[in-house]
Amino acid sequence: MSSSFGRFFRISTFGESHCPGVGVVVDGVPPRMPLTADDVQIQLDRRRPGGNKLGTERNEADRVEILSGTENGLTLGTPIGMLVRNKDQRPGDYGSMSAIPRPSHADYTYRAKYGIHASSGGGRSSARETIGRVAAGAIAEKFLKEEYGIEIVAWVSGVGPHLSADIDMLTINRELVDETAIRCPDPVAAELMSAEIVAAREAQDSVGGVVSCVCRNLPAGLGEPVFDRLEALLAHAMLSLPATKGFEIGSGFAGATMRGSVHNDPFVKKGDRLGTTTNFSGGVQGGISNGEPVYFRTAFKPPATIGQEQPTVDYDGNDAILKAKGRHDPCVVPRAVPIVETMTALVIADLIMIQRMRG
Amino acid sequence: MSSSFGRFFRISTFGESHCPGVGVVVDGVPPRMPLTADDVQIQLDRRRPGGNKLGTERNEADRVEILSGTENGLTLGTPIGMLVRNKDQRPGDYGSMSAIPRPSHADYTYRAKYGIHASSGGGRSSARETIGRVAAGAIAEKFLKEEYGIEIVAWVSGVGPHLSADIDMLTINRELVDETAIRCPDPVAAELMSAEIVAAREAQDSVGGVVSCVCRNLPAGLGEPVFDRLEALLAHAMLSLPATKGFEIGSGFAGATMRGSVHNDPFVKKGDRLGTTTNFSGGVQGGISNGEPVYFRTAFKPPATIGQEQPTVDYDGNDAILKAKGRHDPCVVPRAVPIVETMTALVIADLIMIQRMRG
Amino acid sequence: MSSSFGRFFRISTFGESHCPGVGVVVDGVPPRMPLTADDVQIQLDRRRPGGNKLGTERNEADRVEILSGTENGLTLGTPIGMLVRNKDQRPGDYGSMSAIPRPSHADYTYRAKYGIHASSGGGRSSARETIGRVAAGAIAEKFLKEEYGIEIVAWVSGVGPHLSADIDMLTINRELVDETAIRCPDPVAAELMSAEIVAAREAQDSVGGVVSCVCRNLPAGLGEPVFDRLEALLAHAMLSLPATKGFEIGSGFAGATMRGSVHNDPFVKKGDRLGTTTNFSGGVQGGISNGEPVYFRTAFKPPATIGQEQPTVDYDGNDAILKAKGRHDPCVVPRAVPIVETMTALVIADLIMIQRMRG
Amino acid sequence: MSSSFGRFFRISTFGESHCPGVGVVVDGVPPRMPLTADDVQIQLDRRRPGGNKLGTERNEADRVEILSGTENGLTLGTPIGMLVRNKDQRPGDYGSMSAIPRPSHADYTYRAKYGIHASSGGGRSSARETIGRVAAGAIAEKFLKEEYGIEIVAWVSGVGPHLSADIDMLTINRELVDETAIRCPDPVAAELMSAEIVAAREAQDSVGGVVSCVCRNLPAGLGEPVFDRLEALLAHAMLSLPATKGFEIGSGFAGATMRGSVHNDPFVKKGDRLGTTTNFSGGVQGGISNGEPVYFRTAFKPPATIGQEQPTVDYDGNDAILKAKGRHDPCVVPRAVPIVETMTALVIADLIMIQRMRG
Repeated sequence: MSSSFGRFFRISTFGESHCPGVGVVVDGVPPRMPLTADDVQIQLDRRRPGGNKLGTERNEADRVEILSGTENGLTLGTPIGMLVRNKDQRPGDYGSMSAIPRPSHADYTYRAKYGIHASSGGGRSSARETIGRVAAGAIAEKFLKEEYGIEIVAWVSGVGPHLSADIDMLTINRELVDETAIRCPDPVAAELMSAEIVAAREAQDSVGGVVSCVCRNLPAGLGEPVFDRLEALLAHAMLSLPATKGFEIGSGFAGATMRGSVHNDPFVKKGDRLGTTTNFSGGVQGGISNGEPVYFRTAFKPPATIGQEQPTVDYDGNDAILKAKGRHDPCVVPRAVPIVETMTALVIADLIMIQRMRG
Repeated sequence: MSSSFGRFFRISTFGESHCPGVGVVVDGVPPRMPLTADDVQIQLDRRRPGGNKLGTERNEADRVEILSGTENGLTLGTPIGMLVRNKDQRPGDYGSMSAIPRPSHADYTYRAKYGIHASSGGGRSSARETIGRVAAGAIAEKFLKEEYGIEIVAWVSGVGPHLSADIDMLTINRELVDETAIRCPDPVAAELMSAEIVAAREAQDSVGGVVSCVCRNLPAGLGEPVFDRLEALLAHAMLSLPATKGFEIGSGFAGATMRGSVHNDPFVKKGDRLGTTTNFSGGVQGGISNGEPVYFRTAFKPPATIGQEQPTVDYDGNDAILKAKGRHDPCVVPRAVPIVETMTALVIADLIMIQRMRG
Repeated sequence: MSSSFGRFFRISTFGESHCPGVGVVVDGVPPRMPLTADDVQIQLDRRRPGGNKLGTERNEADRVEILSGTENGLTLGTPIGMLVRNKDQRPGDYGSMSAIPRPSHADYTYRAKYGIHASSGGGRSSARETIGRVAAGAIAEKFLKEEYGIEIVAWVSGVGPHLSADIDMLTINRELVDETAIRCPDPVAAELMSAEIVAAREAQDSVGGVVSCVCRNLPAGLGEPVFDRLEALLAHAMLSLPATKGFEIGSGFAGATMRGSVHNDPFVKKGDRLGTTTNFSGGVQGGISNGEPVYFRTAFKPPATIGQEQPTVDYDGNDAILKAKGRHDPCVVPRAVPIVETMTALVIADLIMIQRMRG
Repeated sequence: MSSSFGRFFRISTFGESHCPGVGVVVDGVPPRMPLTADDVQIQLDRRRPGGNKLGTERNEADRVEILSGTENGLTLGTPIGMLVRNKDQRPGDYGSMSAIPRPSHADYTYRAKYGIHASSGGGRSSARETIGRVAAGAIAEKFLKEEYGIEIVAWVSGVGPHLSADIDMLTINRELVDETAIRCPDPVAAELMSAEIVAAREAQDSVGGVVSCVCRNLPAGLGEPVFDRLEALLAHAMLSLPATKGFEIGSGFAGATMRGSVHNDPFVKKGDRLGTTTNFSGGVQGGISNGEPVYFRTAFKPPATIGQEQPTVDYDGNDAILKAKGRHDPCVVPRAVPIVETMTALVIADLIMIQRMRG
């Protein structure tokens, strides 16, 4: 019920952490587009844990196989199936936790919903599910880049109390973002953020953060009025990611404190189109893109699984102490960067296809 | 493309400001439920402008007619069509603005999208479109209340720089909310907020605000993992409302600054279910309700249409001064309260229907 | 759940026989298309009963009102709401039948499904529901005609045992069809069919029939492989009409008796495209239009409501004799002609929109 | 766009004949249901060509792998991914045909639609795509059987001019059907049909046929009025199968020749429900199941690929002779039997899920 996203550029993901594999079927990819597994692997590699000293040390190679929908390096216009095998199909570290629902984790709610859950607990709510999204979104962003010149760049703009200074949204790119393991292009903030994560890890704790994202070169006219406004679909996409608690576009919550005379973005001529001198709107007016950069922020809570002892109760309500075994990511935001980018690409690709219909 | 919302409890809205009427078709309402136009009118009356000195003084009676789907005061299980006639079908005050796109309004983007737009400019992006949603959501919340005891209450928690103090989410109700025209149940803040709106109006300006909402008595297990998480659908619903810029659930953006050891909500036995001692999760874990109150906040920007002169350009890029005629709402949040409630009800009703399927 | 049809050119209908009205919301109509109520009324008038001596004598004026989505005679690209008021909202003739489910009617199954049904029994399964479809389809066929030159013509090709002789599918048009009340362009067969209907009426009985339909000037490439093949969507559309029992395209059931060497349609050059010398395929290959005329036939059973006495049982299982009061249509196929055409237009319009996305 | 089917029990298929594999993602399978690959393999084995002397002699092992959604032999309620590897990924026999579109095949229309097609031509329109459907439908029918006692049985009721005599729809079962390679439970007709297929093969020709299907023990109340009537969804499902040209339910086209007084099915008490003495309705009234057996017939045209020489033209319109190489199935209906059954199961399972929501 919940494993499909998009209307025309549409994905259906599958897979838990300890089954044979995770993957996705992507329907609606235009035909005759060059595409190989390498195009997809780039973003999968960026989301992989262990790519830097800040993540977990689990080694997940996560090589994607394209199962269908291409021939001789070109898309056929038919569904593209993709599969990433799980390395370890036997749940191990999780077994001893099964009688105690992890606080702020999906264990308890999964049991309430299904009356059963995967031995790893997180099941479809685990970060591993995002592999399918990232693989699909990598195709979407290739399409958007090559066909429309659209650029999507995300970065870490907050970890715990530390925020990045202003980033130039017109020039920020992925190379700059990837210069630090923390994926924050503000070097001073990056240092503080990294230290915060190391401190959280050493305390067997975890810490939350914020990912910012900008989309440049969107044509004006994308986004459907009423229910499928561009910002509504982006919010849907972002809040569908594990561990997210908030979304804001343009001025966001700060905009709620402002007067209209300040917040309104005056129009000005920019080449052959109208642009705006400020961009509190975040590139969206009335739910539809106006040609200015679309930018937004997504809040991620600290991961629920921590090494510290936590007083809680078991499923029967008896007092219990939970202490997670194994290695766990103390902060998800560096890895969330490519996930945010690819989910954004899926939203934009879908809206572009729908707008093409209007001819 | 964008005028339907929900999967099983599904609505399709129609109508602009100056056509014969606005309305909605609601599909998926269970049969044999008592329902009359009066049940729907309650929330329509609460959303109507001019209900208090803070809103516009336009008089919109907005009486709803149920066109189908009920007989002898009972639902038939078939689509419920509802219609609210527009009083004034001739665009008047808007005509003179048609050569100049209003800054931060939908004029420019509608033209980019459709190559045409309604003479009132806002078209489907205008607040009047929300009548259909509110009418539909009033049915949804009646169903949720009577069948499941679910209570949904929204209130104004911010206007400009003024925020309400903590509200008791376990006891807040609509009667308390409606005691002030501003719909803020904190009397001190209500006073400051009202003064802020009056000041904005006198300055021919507008001001933004925040609406908070809580849902109580949700059964555990609602929300579909992955793309249709409860928080993702709520975010989609809220960001689909005109003038919204942000959404946060539970700890929200503040949660991004916290450590896991603080943010995790320990379980505790509550009667025959497990509950939590804190509720940073906002009633949702892994995208699925856990039985605790679900609460969230939505940010509204200041309305774009203001009486002040605004320097901008016309569609051809020539410098121009825009000065809106007519009376315009300086702040939308008091009226947004029932809209937030009813959109929430639509999300919950849909998820309940889907969960019923699992038997 | 069942009241929407189409993906991008999408309709949602509402209304029973004795509620205030029936209607439809049409989403996805392209902007800037000339459209008035008169354009829609044409097909509504053709479907109206009592337009000829063969139908019932009930007088249903059925004037459509366009509620939204147009301004100054042009579509806005937004949802088009349409409403037809019901004349008689008080169920009359049907009351006495309510304890006995009419054989082969929807009374029994509606009660099983909903635990309640409209006093007229048929509820959403009645022919009156088709008003919304016809109104929506009239817009679709106007779009197809003006934008693509697509022509859709249906006619009665069978009533009881009487079949029409071959009709020239390249030239048949609505004027020819409407020359007889029976809407069969073969004058000899028309005479026999009309006599059959009169005979059935005099016997207080009813009779079935077949409607044929052809679509000309479809571009090659319409229809989605796999589940949304052109013929699959047409079959879905036709079998969704009340009283239908069968659908066949091209060679149909006769094709099942043939050898491939005969059934295969050889290609031949036709201007700047390839065409075929025969058309057993019915204009569709692999689910996708090939540019040849698409033609198909739909079987309608005899109406269930007849004046003759019928031995049956009541809801409690007690023996009963049912004798319908009032006037009832002895044969639906003449009126079904515009319904078949407009449903076909809805299918084609949706597929055209989808194909436009491929660019 | 076309690779998904169903609303709540929903499948998305992928794969062409010569890519790495074909498969499906099944969303909406209830949790806690016993399921292994063997349960799925049963129907895959029945659809496999070469299972008898009538089919092609290609050896396709077609072992299915369940990739996700189960653990320890139980469904988790999450999407079930399934994969069948293609043995031969290099197109061979088809290469020489690529300049000439095969008459009545998908070659020409695919090129018109996509501007590219898989080297095997058929692409997604080929029979191999049905593997995903059958795998998914095998799960659906297991669910229906175990949870509701629903039985679905299909058989070959026509090959060329030969039709089976009446089959007892209350007792026919798969064991009886599989007693003959032709899958016709009427031994006399089976003999004639087999001879017809052998004759067609020897003539390097092909022949069409008809598959009948019955569903027993359906509860009354399934099927959504208006667009998603039970018969409309079945027609959609059947006409979405390769090579189908017609569908009829209950009395079908014969019903169009009948009088209502004969066609109406009188009610009678059957245990604690009402049943009917005849079943011209085919178990469906007003689009909703009435508790009687649902039965329908699907017409399959002769396969387009034949060994005989066919005069036609190439893509440029030049005269050409086409002579297919390789071995091709002279008649698809024996293999279509499990495909019809599993597609039927998918339709019923989806409608059951929807009806469960009504509570």
